[in-house]
Amino acid sequence: MDTPTRARSVGAVTARRARFEQPLELRCGRSIAGYELVYETYGTLNAERSNAILVCHALNASHHVAGYYADAPGNVGWWDNIIGPGKPVDTDRFFVVGVNNLGGCFGSTGPASIDPATGSPYGADFPLVTVEDWVAAQARLADHLGIARFAAVMGGSLGAMQALSWTRQFPERLGHALVIACAPNLSAQNIAFNEVARQAILTDPEFHDGHYYEKGVKPVRGLRVARMVGHITYLSDDAMASKFGRQLRNGSIGYSFEPEFEIESYLRHQGGKFAEYFDANTYVRITKALDYFDPALDTGGNLARALSAVRAAFLVISFTTDWRFAPERSREIVQALLRNGRDVTYGEIDAPHGHDAFLLDDPRYHALVAAYMDRVYDELGTAGAASTGTGAAAGAHAPADIAGDAR
Amino acid sequence: MDTPTRARSVGAVTARRARFEQPLELRCGRSIAGYELVYETYGTLNAERSNAILVCHALNASHHVAGYYADAPGNVGWWDNIIGPGKPVDTDRFFVVGVNNLGGCFGSTGPASIDPATGSPYGADFPLVTVEDWVAAQARLADHLGIARFAAVMGGSLGAMQALSWTRQFPERLGHALVIACAPNLSAQNIAFNEVARQAILTDPEFHDGHYYEKGVKPVRGLRVARMVGHITYLSDDAMASKFGRQLRNGSIGYSFEPEFEIESYLRHQGGKFAEYFDANTYVRITKALDYFDPALDTGGNLARALSAVRAAFLVISFTTDWRFAPERSREIVQALLRNGRDVTYGEIDAPHGHDAFLLDDPRYHALVAAYMDRVYDELGTAGAASTGTGAAAGAHAPADIAGDAR
Repeated sequence: MDTPTRARSVGAVTARRARFEQPLELRCGRSIAGYELVYETYGTLNAERSNAILVCHALNASHHVAGYYADAPGNVGWWDNIIGPGKPVDTDRFFVVGVNNLGGCFGSTGPASIDPATGSPYGADFPLVTVEDWVAAQARLADHLGIARFAAVMGGSLGAMQALSWTRQFPERLGHALVIACAPNLSAQNIAFNEVARQAILTDPEFHDGHYYEKGVKPVRGLRVARMVGHITYLSDDAMASKFGRQLRNGSIGYSFEPEFEIESYLRHQGGKFAEYFDANTYVRITKALDYFDPALDTGGNLARALSAVRAAFLVISFTTDWRFAPERSREIVQALLRNGRDVTYGEIDAPHGHDAFLLDDPRYHALVAAYMDRVYDELGTAGAASTGTGAAAGAHAPADIAGDAR
Repeated sequence: MDTPTRARSVGAVTARRARFEQPLELRCGRSIAGYELVYETYGTLNAERSNAILVCHALNASHHVAGYYADAPGNVGWWDNIIGPGKPVDTDRFFVVGVNNLGGCFGSTGPASIDPATGSPYGADFPLVTVEDWVAAQARLADHLGIARFAAVMGGSLGAMQALSWTRQFPERLGHALVIACAPNLSAQNIAFNEVARQAILTDPEFHDGHYYEKGVKPVRGLRVARMVGHITYLSDDAMASKFGRQLRNGSIGYSFEPEFEIESYLRHQGGKFAEYFDANTYVRITKALDYFDPALDTGGNLARALSAVRAAFLVISFTTDWRFAPERSREIVQALLRNGRDVTYGEIDAPHGHDAFLLDDPRYHALVAAYMDRVYDELGTAGAASTGTGAAAGAHAPADIAGDAR
């Protein structure tokens, strides 16, 4: 592999927007009348339309997966380290699609969008969307792009749950699933952290039961606390210890409620930054989608049975210090797939960074993805296409400061 | 050991109140003019005044360690399962003292008390008190009770930090220290959780910078979220999984922000209950005392050197699933003590309950404490005294609902 020398950015990209008029039936029993999805593409769809890769995002990321915006060169896509010409997901070979999910806050229809029925923002009236709903909406985007079948669907964390759900909902529409830093469902502890984050937001007086847009306020305090809780679960205890330890900001104890330890300062900074750009209604809904995800719910907890119709081949990757979605949770997925005779490659990467590792540039991790994508490419039976093709037309920009901060 | 058959409650107890007029110099550089401490005692101080045991409390507990109040029989002391006639800390042998720490909210002088200088509650003006300050105040209570030397000082979690600090601050004033579920200082992750809890309170609009008493409000929302965060860290992931798992309250997903999973319901209940009785100014101060505790700060991180003047013998106990203060943190204490040639008994209890285990009735844990206390008793060289002696006089009652909920 000569990746390091030839790897480069996909360059300047542009977000596009697709509108869907047909109502989408949702798991919650409601439906959404018409909606828009914002997306980006990198690389070129080959003549056989067989080299498309769908990248699903996690809690706070977006359609802006790779490259940068011409008018905002610092706004680099959240998975730019793995996607681009010569990178593990090689845009000289693949046509990569990134999409902001339904209910998101980076341009796709979400709680802050205008409800055509009322002329006001949906706010609290926006339905609770699930992983399955997102996948259904993504499938319509695939139709819109003329992609009958993805060579692979990939994601990390909540994004990986979408990749896994693709293999159940549309078994014939993907060849491979890359399921990274995932779990077959949330543990009680995972749900507990989500509930704390939600309660911080829902009880913020400026949340106004989700109708804060009209009031001209935002539940900034709640979002800050929610994001701080999240950050603790993204980092391993060891990573926090080695990055911050008990380091004091000013060399000595100040006996005040100002940030005294570096870790306090870091968390406040991360929380504050997040609260500026993320929408609270989207946040509480995404945590609910995480809580609800549970493919084995309809099969009495039997994950193997839940995955019996799956046809894709799998790359499953976990990280040793990820205590949010620990390796044993990935192994549950692997075992359920093996029980169905599926083709599974499993890698457990010894990385110190906790759940965050899936976003970081670990050479062993990236080498594993690169090798697997070589195989996906070989199976295409085609020489692929030239690079440099990117999107065009009107679309929303994801804010610059979420780069590298995209769980 | 025939503990199970003869163990019983200390019975009805009464809190007492001691007033101290001499100002207490605090670590923060300020001093507190005069103050009161509320305490309880169980058992009888022997003629030699040598059989006294001090029990130090953790984050939200109080002086009400064992027994119950005659007018509130359901209000059982937080460590009643380990302290009483025939129990591991046997009040037929020992004179046990429980005290609400300075800055607390169960009757001792704290932020809600009237500042004699202003005639209004201290509120935000109450100083930041440290573990060392609490120990200094406890030593004055010992003087007041005529106890020159404790047979043992004991505690769990933050209470154990006080026991450890006693051995440094007053090496000649205790024979033994029982240091249970402790750490020599907080890790970055521990501090991070405290900071999230504090931010939830400090940014609650009803906190009013700590001067909420005058406004007739309480930062209930912030306290709820803070306590929810705490609860997650008290339970092990496994304990949460086996107690709650993904169990739904109503059998099916409701697609709403009402509590749907049992774990959500549990956390909201615990948070709500806590917010009713605990004082926010006390909470933020106690988390700061936890953050600051670091005996090795003055010895460049060398814990052995920090403990070089220690004279007590030690029982150190940790619990395998405690991820808040994991066994390796207790082992750091043990190793530092051994390097000083101290007499240390160390027990690592294989218990499923996480940090909470120190409050629970685990037979192996209690047997270890009982055996150690037999030794403490043997060393007294006295036959001890009869039981049934309890306190009297005016004092504050700790609320009923903190029993068994006292980290």
